[in-house]
Amino acid sequence: MSMPDYGRAFALWRAAAAESWERYTRHAFVERLGDGSLPREAFLHYLQQDYVFLIHFARAWALAAAKAETLEELQAAASTVHALVHVEMPLHIRVCAAEGISQAALEATPERKENLAYTRYVLEAGYSGDFLDLMAALAPCVLGYGEIGLRLAASATDTPWRNWIDTYAGEEFQQACRTAGALIDSSLTRRLGDDWERQPRWKRLCERFETATRLEEGFWDMGLRPGA
Amino acid sequence: MSMPDYGRAFALWRAAAAESWERYTRHAFVERLGDGSLPREAFLHYLQQDYVFLIHFARAWALAAAKAETLEELQAAASTVHALVHVEMPLHIRVCAAEGISQAALEATPERKENLAYTRYVLEAGYSGDFLDLMAALAPCVLGYGEIGLRLAASATDTPWRNWIDTYAGEEFQQACRTAGALIDSSLTRRLGDDWERQPRWKRLCERFETATRLEEGFWDMGLRPGA
Amino acid sequence: MSMPDYGRAFALWRAAAAESWERYTRHAFVERLGDGSLPREAFLHYLQQDYVFLIHFARAWALAAAKAETLEELQAAASTVHALVHVEMPLHIRVCAAEGISQAALEATPERKENLAYTRYVLEAGYSGDFLDLMAALAPCVLGYGEIGLRLAASATDTPWRNWIDTYAGEEFQQACRTAGALIDSSLTRRLGDDWERQPRWKRLCERFETATRLEEGFWDMGLRPGA
Amino acid sequence: MSMPDYGRAFALWRAAAAESWERYTRHAFVERLGDGSLPREAFLHYLQQDYVFLIHFARAWALAAAKAETLEELQAAASTVHALVHVEMPLHIRVCAAEGISQAALEATPERKENLAYTRYVLEAGYSGDFLDLMAALAPCVLGYGEIGLRLAASATDTPWRNWIDTYAGEEFQQACRTAGALIDSSLTRRLGDDWERQPRWKRLCERFETATRLEEGFWDMGLRPGA
Repeated sequence: MSMPDYGRAFALWRAAAAESWERYTRHAFVERLGDGSLPREAFLHYLQQDYVFLIHFARAWALAAAKAETLEELQAAASTVHALVHVEMPLHIRVCAAEGISQAALEATPERKENLAYTRYVLEAGYSGDFLDLMAALAPCVLGYGEIGLRLAASATDTPWRNWIDTYAGEEFQQACRTAGALIDSSLTRRLGDDWERQPRWKRLCERFETATRLEEGFWDMGLRPGA
Repeated sequence: MSMPDYGRAFALWRAAAAESWERYTRHAFVERLGDGSLPREAFLHYLQQDYVFLIHFARAWALAAAKAETLEELQAAASTVHALVHVEMPLHIRVCAAEGISQAALEATPERKENLAYTRYVLEAGYSGDFLDLMAALAPCVLGYGEIGLRLAASATDTPWRNWIDTYAGEEFQQACRTAGALIDSSLTRRLGDDWERQPRWKRLCERFETATRLEEGFWDMGLRPGA
Repeated sequence: MSMPDYGRAFALWRAAAAESWERYTRHAFVERLGDGSLPREAFLHYLQQDYVFLIHFARAWALAAAKAETLEELQAAASTVHALVHVEMPLHIRVCAAEGISQAALEATPERKENLAYTRYVLEAGYSGDFLDLMAALAPCVLGYGEIGLRLAASATDTPWRNWIDTYAGEEFQQACRTAGALIDSSLTRRLGDDWERQPRWKRLCERFETATRLEEGFWDMGLRPGA
Repeated sequence: MSMPDYGRAFALWRAAAAESWERYTRHAFVERLGDGSLPREAFLHYLQQDYVFLIHFARAWALAAAKAETLEELQAAASTVHALVHVEMPLHIRVCAAEGISQAALEATPERKENLAYTRYVLEAGYSGDFLDLMAALAPCVLGYGEIGLRLAASATDTPWRNWIDTYAGEEFQQACRTAGALIDSSLTRRLGDDWERQPRWKRLCERFETATRLEEGFWDMGLRPGA
């Protein structure tokens, strides 16, 4: 399957982090979501950790809004935060409830180290750096889930985790990925000029993207060890 | 006219900063909005500066979302950012356009020192401190405009600035003030306990509120000197 | 051996995180430093990761200086940063050079996830929170090394890692621990009042301390897996 | 008198902000320091406000240390913070004591709006941006005082404020200016490449420098109105 078109920066970042990207997007956790062999216990554990993740993920997008330099960037980041906390999180809570995990249980979830490592890395990148640091650190999550969703939707046949796949393969999420990719490209051009991939800054943003990708891989590792 | 009921913290903050609050909410700029004597040039100048202010104000609420400690705080702050950048700012742009100020002109507005002083004070309070510091620094703007709107709506008779008054006296903005006041009260209780007004922290939050009130007064001062 | 006296907050934090504290301060990595059985490869790997750690650790203390509320806090944090970057890091570079690790190699050290997790957790705690969040997140490192140093100095007999032990058991580092402990106690009293351990805030600071302690444990885990 | 040589970025920033720079560095407050006509009341008021300024100025340099990307940047910023809080501030306290202003009075100084505007602008620039934003916002203070000191030392004949002039004209402060200028140049090259003055980012750094220069001008304005 070809790479989805989420813009120019994504294509370059993905190529520069090719091995890490492969380990993340073709992780055993992902493959087992697709072939249906992922144990239910592992999926539920993942859902609970993902609730904690989403809180910090929304905080990171809010920080991006605080660090926006144009009204367009501010509006784009604000829309993402709004969708996360008013649509995605309530949906997540309902999905968990349907699986027997109460909201109280979600809120009491002990945060795993692999989860904490990723979200604090993203937030610290944002606080210490700027809008671009946040975009580079957030991209592997947003765009990686988009790519994983598309690939599994095309290949998966019969799996109890079909809903999860459809969410990320669905047009709504795919559109969000294209919008995020376009936002990333325009924010790069605004700050670094048209030839942004030849700037010293670009190299460090590639490192950010790759580090975040490795931390996503760690998140899947954790997902396969629910009892740890 | 009695004080509007925007919650317990607001009543205490307002009382502790009584003189500054009076100078802010009964500033000549405000009185002249109410009696119609404010020159059109001053009003348009204020509108332009207010555009710049709103950008930073939205950023500050986004920072509050990043610093939220509960899903409720995160949702409340995210809703405020969303309303600011997707409703209030487009409205502001339309109002300015109707007055002959293009969006390009708004974006090119040279930021006045009094404007900058207030917004950077709020943002720095938020970055250096926490959610409560942001609430104390943002409250004079949100709740002060609510109080000013209500008072002028009750007293003003014939003024070209009636629309401005109606916006802030209107039920939608008044509801936003009550919601913000309730958010402030609950965030105080969560962090400082039920007896928050007896904590050392409370005294510093009162200082924040008063400093921000003095900076709002400076904003009106600026409003009366459009040519400076 | 009894607990060293690094102040009131430390004693309470340590007791509240007793199991995690035990796993951290009596970790196999520590015990093998003491009995001399730690492989040289593991020690050198630890030294290299510790260089990366020290950079971020110094940044976190600098952030504490930025978040200080009194001249005393500012001076204390500034002294710590100064000692770290002008004394401890040059010493670290010399120790590594003596072991055959060049400064260029140190600077090129690939940061391990367990290392990253701890430092970004501390920095994010500081950016999102205040001086107290930083103190709670930094304390396990500073005061834990002090306690480990003292214990190993009293029990270790013949180990190639004697210098490491003597550094942390030495009067200079022990004095730094007592100073840090006193700074923590006074910063708590200043912000939360004399009965700070009965404030809602205290409970969250205990959680910060315990999380940071768990991340220190992860750092030792990493230390035992140099080739991972 | 020719411009002092504090590096390439300073020369370009100064030229791009020529009018504001002139208003700041040749402000009536400065001229009256030089010709001795500045009233003692104004000077003492300035000293008191400068105490508050120094606290936030040191915090801003500490934030620069937190945002450093190399050991050299970290060491340079840490040295500046250390010198500010352990040398310059104690000196300031002694100078004030000699003029009859106690440390308690200094600590109780009500912060003037013009003072607050500048320091919060610098700190917010640093929190929202990166090391370069801090350097651009801090440069007018550090390097402007160096330039003012040199010029007044060469022209002033008989003034009660000779000590002030000598401090900033002195070799120690001049060396600090050259060191800061070199740090700025190298941090630009590291982040933006050798042709940094042709990057989009450079234009925004020039705006930062000019805004900070205008806020320094406001600080002198305040200095001439001690009773306001």
